[in-house]
Amino acid sequence: MYSENLELSFRVRDQLLSVKTDYQRIDVFDTYDFGKLLAIDGTVQLTERDEFVYHEMITMMPYYSSKIVPKSALIIGGGDGGAAGALLSLGLKKIVNVEIDKQVVEVSKKFFPSLYKSFKNNKVTLEIDDGVKYISSVKEKFDLIVIDSTDPVGPAEGLFEQNFYSKVKSVLSPNGIAVTQSGSPFYQPKALKMAYQGLSATFKYARPYCAFIPTYPSGFWSFTMASDVPFVNNSKNVKPGKYFNQDVYTGALKLPQFVKNLIQGPDTSDKKKKSSRKK
Amino acid sequence: MYSENLELSFRVRDQLLSVKTDYQRIDVFDTYDFGKLLAIDGTVQLTERDEFVYHEMITMMPYYSSKIVPKSALIIGGGDGGAAGALLSLGLKKIVNVEIDKQVVEVSKKFFPSLYKSFKNNKVTLEIDDGVKYISSVKEKFDLIVIDSTDPVGPAEGLFEQNFYSKVKSVLSPNGIAVTQSGSPFYQPKALKMAYQGLSATFKYARPYCAFIPTYPSGFWSFTMASDVPFVNNSKNVKPGKYFNQDVYTGALKLPQFVKNLIQGPDTSDKKKKSSRKK
Repeated sequence: MYSENLELSFRVRDQLLSVKTDYQRIDVFDTYDFGKLLAIDGTVQLTERDEFVYHEMITMMPYYSSKIVPKSALIIGGGDGGAAGALLSLGLKKIVNVEIDKQVVEVSKKFFPSLYKSFKNNKVTLEIDDGVKYISSVKEKFDLIVIDSTDPVGPAEGLFEQNFYSKVKSVLSPNGIAVTQSGSPFYQPKALKMAYQGLSATFKYARPYCAFIPTYPSGFWSFTMASDVPFVNNSKNVKPGKYFNQDVYTGALKLPQFVKNLIQGPDTSDKKKKSSRKK
Repeated sequence: MYSENLELSFRVRDQLLSVKTDYQRIDVFDTYDFGKLLAIDGTVQLTERDEFVYHEMITMMPYYSSKIVPKSALIIGGGDGGAAGALLSLGLKKIVNVEIDKQVVEVSKKFFPSLYKSFKNNKVTLEIDDGVKYISSVKEKFDLIVIDSTDPVGPAEGLFEQNFYSKVKSVLSPNGIAVTQSGSPFYQPKALKMAYQGLSATFKYARPYCAFIPTYPSGFWSFTMASDVPFVNNSKNVKPGKYFNQDVYTGALKLPQFVKNLIQGPDTSDKKKKSSRKK
């Protein structure tokens, strides 16, 4: 499932679904070690056993980096409901979730009810729409924008482009934070580069962070958050998740050297403009 | 290669070797994406493409945590030569490398010459011997002891037992640090528990840390270092490796919540005795 040269295979009890939608192929497997597994176009999106890492890290990192307490959120993608659920746990008051493929939501309803259930919460509004189109027309602003997309091939390609990030900025609260999943730095350096460069060019501050997700390619995943105000660390004494805690907040921002080199050479701080620094 | 329920498969150009030694089965493959790959008893030990993470992290973390500048080191295992090479790069003056299986060294000489070459350095003494036996009889002391073993099944099982850690302590300099690889916290919680509990019971300070190693099970790996003196952080302004840098020093010590819970419940610091703390 990684590339033609590397494959992670799960021993499967049963294939529960295989459907070709207008956008992509969706498969659901019942695996021995990871519970139910959702794959889109042959790439693992989530498993019951380790989805917590991805969903905690794509929501809690920006949430606890925010100068203001985020009250509203926009999710682009995330049709499984996992990101919405994580944001509800954080106490968000209003969440709009825009998923392009209604079949993803149907599949989640049937096979991942504990994730799907967020869509039954009256704080969450589900819109079946193209995220790029939606964001171009929506009038309100959001404190958090979570780009929970597939990889930058196929329907999600536009979600890694600078043009899209400008639109994100236009619907982000002045003190808000946007975050995107940005792929495996090991296997998909392009995804991280595109996200980091696009967000850096659009926002004053952009910062990648990493987490370990066993069922994703290489097990090592990146996210990139961006804002026009400096990130703060509000994770002190936070109630830990299953992966996230106060230590992880700090640790996730510490990038291995090959990741630093990938995005901009040896020095990576949260300020993208270095010229103003004292020597 | 992970378990019967999960398998990471590498597309292989050629199998270069498969040999059953007195201790284990050794295979070498020429893979498309990872260069040459060494497997022992069906488990990936190293690939040319990502061995740098393991070898930097098992040496640079304890090296830069040491109160004294380490001059001498004992490696248990590590017959490929990678750990010895990393220690030579750090400037160690005297390295004794004890490998139980001379065939591992032979295989490295033939297929991984860039790792094997450390054994040609006159600062390195290679001993083909059982690490437990060697450490019971050696008279000198070492500033660093690196337990670069296979997993705690088969020949390496004894290297995760408290009895062995007591012997390690007896040949460690008073200000020295011992470190062991301690498995994948996700797939092999027992390895980390055994290492952490055994080292905690033997030394005043024991501290796990983690790194991403794409070709190891789950991609997420742990190491545990131990000492009778507190760890210090000497990584400031260190010349980065390909993975290690000053940030990684800090980040690697920040454990995800499920790893903290695994080893000792919610609170993990480098002090194992909490009773003396102020409430």
